[in-house]
Amino acid sequence: MIKTFVFDAYGTLYDVQSVADVTDRAFPGHGEIITQIWRMKQLEYSWLRSLMNDYRDFWTVTREALTYTLSVLGLTPSATLFDDIAEAYNRLTPYPDAVPALVGLSGARRAILSNGSPHMLDALVGGSDLRDLIETTISVDEKRVFKPDPRAYELVEERLGVKPHEVVFVSSNGFDIAGAKRFGFRVARIVRVPPAVLVREISEARAGTPGALRPTTLYKALRTQEEALGHTPDFVIASLADLSRLAA
Amino acid sequence: MIKTFVFDAYGTLYDVQSVADVTDRAFPGHGEIITQIWRMKQLEYSWLRSLMNDYRDFWTVTREALTYTLSVLGLTPSATLFDDIAEAYNRLTPYPDAVPALVGLSGARRAILSNGSPHMLDALVGGSDLRDLIETTISVDEKRVFKPDPRAYELVEERLGVKPHEVVFVSSNGFDIAGAKRFGFRVARIVRVPPAVLVREISEARAGTPGALRPTTLYKALRTQEEALGHTPDFVIASLADLSRLAA
Repeated sequence: MIKTFVFDAYGTLYDVQSVADVTDRAFPGHGEIITQIWRMKQLEYSWLRSLMNDYRDFWTVTREALTYTLSVLGLTPSATLFDDIAEAYNRLTPYPDAVPALVGLSGARRAILSNGSPHMLDALVGGSDLRDLIETTISVDEKRVFKPDPRAYELVEERLGVKPHEVVFVSSNGFDIAGAKRFGFRVARIVRVPPAVLVREISEARAGTPGALRPTTLYKALRTQEEALGHTPDFVIASLADLSRLAA
Repeated sequence: MIKTFVFDAYGTLYDVQSVADVTDRAFPGHGEIITQIWRMKQLEYSWLRSLMNDYRDFWTVTREALTYTLSVLGLTPSATLFDDIAEAYNRLTPYPDAVPALVGLSGARRAILSNGSPHMLDALVGGSDLRDLIETTISVDEKRVFKPDPRAYELVEERLGVKPHEVVFVSSNGFDIAGAKRFGFRVARIVRVPPAVLVREISEARAGTPGALRPTTLYKALRTQEEALGHTPDFVIASLADLSRLAA
């Protein structure tokens, strides 16, 4: 029986695609491509800054990724509009399975370990229905590295006092699953995009407009599937509700 | 006057897009999307393995990235076909400006610093016309990290005996430009995809099939432009031939 569940936030409990309304209102017709490039560069920048020993917090990383995205698309926002778009990352919508799953795990410890800065996580979690369902929200910020650097995952033991093998770490992000498994956690992978659905989506897109894909489809192909890095999850679940079986 | 030029290989001297013939022959109609996802995951995996302290050489990384790519697309190659595709990375075509530029810099020292494994670089450089135009080909392999980790860039001083500020490091890759500049090199960015061309390509694609883009266009948007990481190159050049002005 597992007594401690630690969750990734972005893409696992909260839907990063939920910024699309804001990006499309800011630049009508460009919302989808902004949303996808922004998210891809946000993670790239977190990895590159960790590698270069050049840490900036995730709020800076998120804004730099947005700067890159709009620049590449030839879009020039006002400072106010830029801030409005960036702020959307602090108001992401929880996935529908998040609240019921956390309620169902009320007999276990439930924490978040996220790349988000403390200010971002305060806004994100504090402004959502997950607020009272999470014991502690841990930001990697004090380590000045991002996941999947092992130092980020060390924070769980330091803050919760539990050994890695006593923890089930839950994430939808391939890099995070590989990193957490490599670190020593037991890992549950929540499948947000089933492989068969993705293969069908790609093949239908190719039939419709040969060779061309929606940016969201390419995002799914790049970032929502299990990585081939040799660190496979212990559990694969279709809904966060499935975690209750591990706690029973 | 600059006396030492150190070049990135993949994307700078050699065109990573030149695997497209092989990928398309292997899976007709899928060549473009394989080529783009493969390259994007190859670099992601090099960064993630560095971050996880879980080094494998670039040949393994290249093959794992190909495994991921084909799996996501629902394609199942034979072992022989898989090997054939992977080997394409060891026969990339040099960009047309590479040989004349290196000839023009014959009064200066010319080296390569690459993520490639020694075996890959032997095949790549040894099998091309750049063979006799490069003094030394340095692989990051002995450091067991990939660029942009600063330890990778340290190899230049260790192997060539020149201080970072005496070197012009030449790359088309945004992450490499940022990493090399952050490390202390003088950096020349070779623009392989001009921003205005990319903006036009995106906007024309959107006009033709609303919302959909070719994978190559999205690759260009993600990986060929200058990063917004605050480490800007000292020189921006449209052709490697422009380097001769720095050596004059």
